[in-house]
Amino acid sequence: MALLPSLRAALPNATIWDAAELASRDPGFDTRNFGASALVRPRDVEEVAALVKFCSERGISLVAQGGRTGLAGGAATSQGQVICDLGGLNRIEDIDPFTRVAIVQAGVTLGALQEAAAQHGLDPGIDLAARGSATIGGMVSTNAGGIMAFRNGTMRHRVLGLEAVLPDGRLFCDLTRVLKTSAGYDLKHLFIGAEGTLGIVTRVALRLDPVAGASATALVGVPNAASAQHIVRHFLTSTSARLTAAEILWRNFASLMQRSLNYASGSLPLDAPCLLVLGLGADSIEAARSALEGGLAAIWEEVGIVDGLVASSEGQAAAMWRLREETVEIERAHPMAPSFDVSVPAGALDAYVARIEAGLKKLDASYAPYVYGHLADGNLHISLNCEGPVPHERHEAIEDVLYEGLREAGGSFSAEHGVGLEKREAYERHADPVKRDLAKAIKELIDPGNVMNPGKVVG
Amino acid sequence: MALLPSLRAALPNATIWDAAELASRDPGFDTRNFGASALVRPRDVEEVAALVKFCSERGISLVAQGGRTGLAGGAATSQGQVICDLGGLNRIEDIDPFTRVAIVQAGVTLGALQEAAAQHGLDPGIDLAARGSATIGGMVSTNAGGIMAFRNGTMRHRVLGLEAVLPDGRLFCDLTRVLKTSAGYDLKHLFIGAEGTLGIVTRVALRLDPVAGASATALVGVPNAASAQHIVRHFLTSTSARLTAAEILWRNFASLMQRSLNYASGSLPLDAPCLLVLGLGADSIEAARSALEGGLAAIWEEVGIVDGLVASSEGQAAAMWRLREETVEIERAHPMAPSFDVSVPAGALDAYVARIEAGLKKLDASYAPYVYGHLADGNLHISLNCEGPVPHERHEAIEDVLYEGLREAGGSFSAEHGVGLEKREAYERHADPVKRDLAKAIKELIDPGNVMNPGKVVG
Repeated sequence: MALLPSLRAALPNATIWDAAELASRDPGFDTRNFGASALVRPRDVEEVAALVKFCSERGISLVAQGGRTGLAGGAATSQGQVICDLGGLNRIEDIDPFTRVAIVQAGVTLGALQEAAAQHGLDPGIDLAARGSATIGGMVSTNAGGIMAFRNGTMRHRVLGLEAVLPDGRLFCDLTRVLKTSAGYDLKHLFIGAEGTLGIVTRVALRLDPVAGASATALVGVPNAASAQHIVRHFLTSTSARLTAAEILWRNFASLMQRSLNYASGSLPLDAPCLLVLGLGADSIEAARSALEGGLAAIWEEVGIVDGLVASSEGQAAAMWRLREETVEIERAHPMAPSFDVSVPAGALDAYVARIEAGLKKLDASYAPYVYGHLADGNLHISLNCEGPVPHERHEAIEDVLYEGLREAGGSFSAEHGVGLEKREAYERHADPVKRDLAKAIKELIDPGNVMNPGKVVG
Repeated sequence: MALLPSLRAALPNATIWDAAELASRDPGFDTRNFGASALVRPRDVEEVAALVKFCSERGISLVAQGGRTGLAGGAATSQGQVICDLGGLNRIEDIDPFTRVAIVQAGVTLGALQEAAAQHGLDPGIDLAARGSATIGGMVSTNAGGIMAFRNGTMRHRVLGLEAVLPDGRLFCDLTRVLKTSAGYDLKHLFIGAEGTLGIVTRVALRLDPVAGASATALVGVPNAASAQHIVRHFLTSTSARLTAAEILWRNFASLMQRSLNYASGSLPLDAPCLLVLGLGADSIEAARSALEGGLAAIWEEVGIVDGLVASSEGQAAAMWRLREETVEIERAHPMAPSFDVSVPAGALDAYVARIEAGLKKLDASYAPYVYGHLADGNLHISLNCEGPVPHERHEAIEDVLYEGLREAGGSFSAEHGVGLEKREAYERHADPVKRDLAKAIKELIDPGNVMNPGKVVG
């Protein structure tokens, strides 16, 4: 039987689209997401397992998709492949306000969980711009990060337990709701960040945190990242307020944003080598503003702060955040600009940025990267000031500049976007060979037919 | 050649003890620790790798040991086995105050790291009573927890990267120093909590946190764990102080401690079904005390607090903590009392304790367990009021009472002590079968000769 009729016979109750239907739909961030021959949207875990068995028995590649907001091509598909769309598994099954745990199906969006948790004064403790579409299953599978990771950890640190359908159709079920467990190998970590290559995550137990007080925002100009680190350290050491964000913008990026957003010069303190957007939480907005003002004043001279302003209104705070968040302006100025996502040990940021600026200039004198990101955990986003895609060889040369020495220094060539397709070559060139060997052996052990999202992450 | 001469030939520079020497030494917490035929103390990673290769080639069992403070028999050895003592790898290689990361060799004790970090105003964020002997490698291998886990996570959440010698002698090297990495399968998690069955952890990159302010202590009597949870939630929601500890003591345990410690009745608020030892950090001890007093007063009626006292001196705070920490008194009253270490979703604590009290009474009308532990993460320690060891069948019946339904409820039969030998049967009886299958397959994949700590964890 042909693929579509067989699928419909095996999964009579699931929603199934063929290639023509897929071609008529929005594929999400990556146009390759809908290259498959079919999409199946199971309604429950049993149907996911049936679909996995169907594909395993026939050697058909199966690619799990959540909100299709991934940035590394992890959900890209091609002809002959089948998509397992988790959108039908969209129930928040339980929010336990005492244990502060949520049990959610994989297709629940982050935004939906945030809303439901807020009704109990709780929050998933992780946030990212794609919250309206990104699903919990997808965020687990890419080990998503975001601006609160320095405090709350990445998705890996938020997951207490998970359930996944293995390539042979069996259910790996570890819906632990507690933080402390030392009861044998903690195998859920294999599925976190595996981008669907070892199985399909179907349910997740997540930590929730109490929502606390109000948050104030400041924009601070500093001479370099080291100064910014001093500020972060100062606020981390204080117990009278809670640092909620510390985003850093190097001048080239900040200038582009200021121009794009038409900010009048002088309206905000924008003239410094680095800008720092700080968030500080306290029991009231007044207390938070006062703690920010007091804290900055106390270290102003010592740290060498160039300029700074605590937002006096919601509107002013939003204007500060737009400087950091309207990154779509890069795309507007340089369509398909080569973009990267690295982690650098936070103490080495200035040296790293100086090194890559020099290295990129050697490749092309016109290169001046836009650099910004999460200061407190050293996660930098880097985009080049040129249209993309650049030729393969050039892309590789750029990657070599950005990734060289990064592993030895304890950083990462992929901080929070995953490997997917985009970083497959970087993975082969820059990840530890023993680790890659072991990963490949585990992939072959768990998915001997190479059915689950083949060609991604481990190849 | 016989074992000892061969070892000495292969590792001419390592310290090597034979069985007679071992018999004359202190084996640590578990008398079985020194049952092996030889102990080798390598001086560096290369010697660990040489020892691993030596044992792998000859099919000799190798058991890694750190501080020998484990409570689950994970380091027990028997004739014919060789111990890899990590005590020679005791260097703190780096503390980076900006990135807030320590790179330590596996044999460094927690206490030594705490001291070194304190010189930079930093702390490993994890603490336990055996800090003077327990090593970082051992704590990684058992995924140690302690009283700060509810805030800072367990060892698993503190490890940024690690290096381990694999059974084939290769070095798995992932000394990542950053929190955010999504660069392929995060295989370091296989070695965390594996109790040396998949390889020997030799170096670790750990997060450090800034030391913040001062901490005040209160002892609060409450009708039940649910009330205690309300108190915890109240302080977690406040941003003006930082909850640093929330330990719960059920009456039977608290009474034993009070008698053993000869506390005069009336000196502390001790007459309540449950006692809560609270720690609250703020910028000064006065601020912390005042926040504790204010916070408790604000919810006193609502929560139904029976009695409470904020310690007005260091001495009074220490007296409160002794009630929780002098657990050696159980051992004194009931030598070798059967003891357990479970995680229960924090919202279900009262029901769980009621259920096990009733279940144990059914087994033996004299059974009245001592129950205490880490309230905020639901980790309970339970000891029976009888001498041990009890006959095997009885032990199993007790475990069935304690562990029944725990997995389904999202708890764990081993919260922070590991599986080792003690919980091997519980693992077989109470862990998810698909998870056990997968764990066994991974053990066979990585250690096909079953050389690394055989018989532990996965069998």
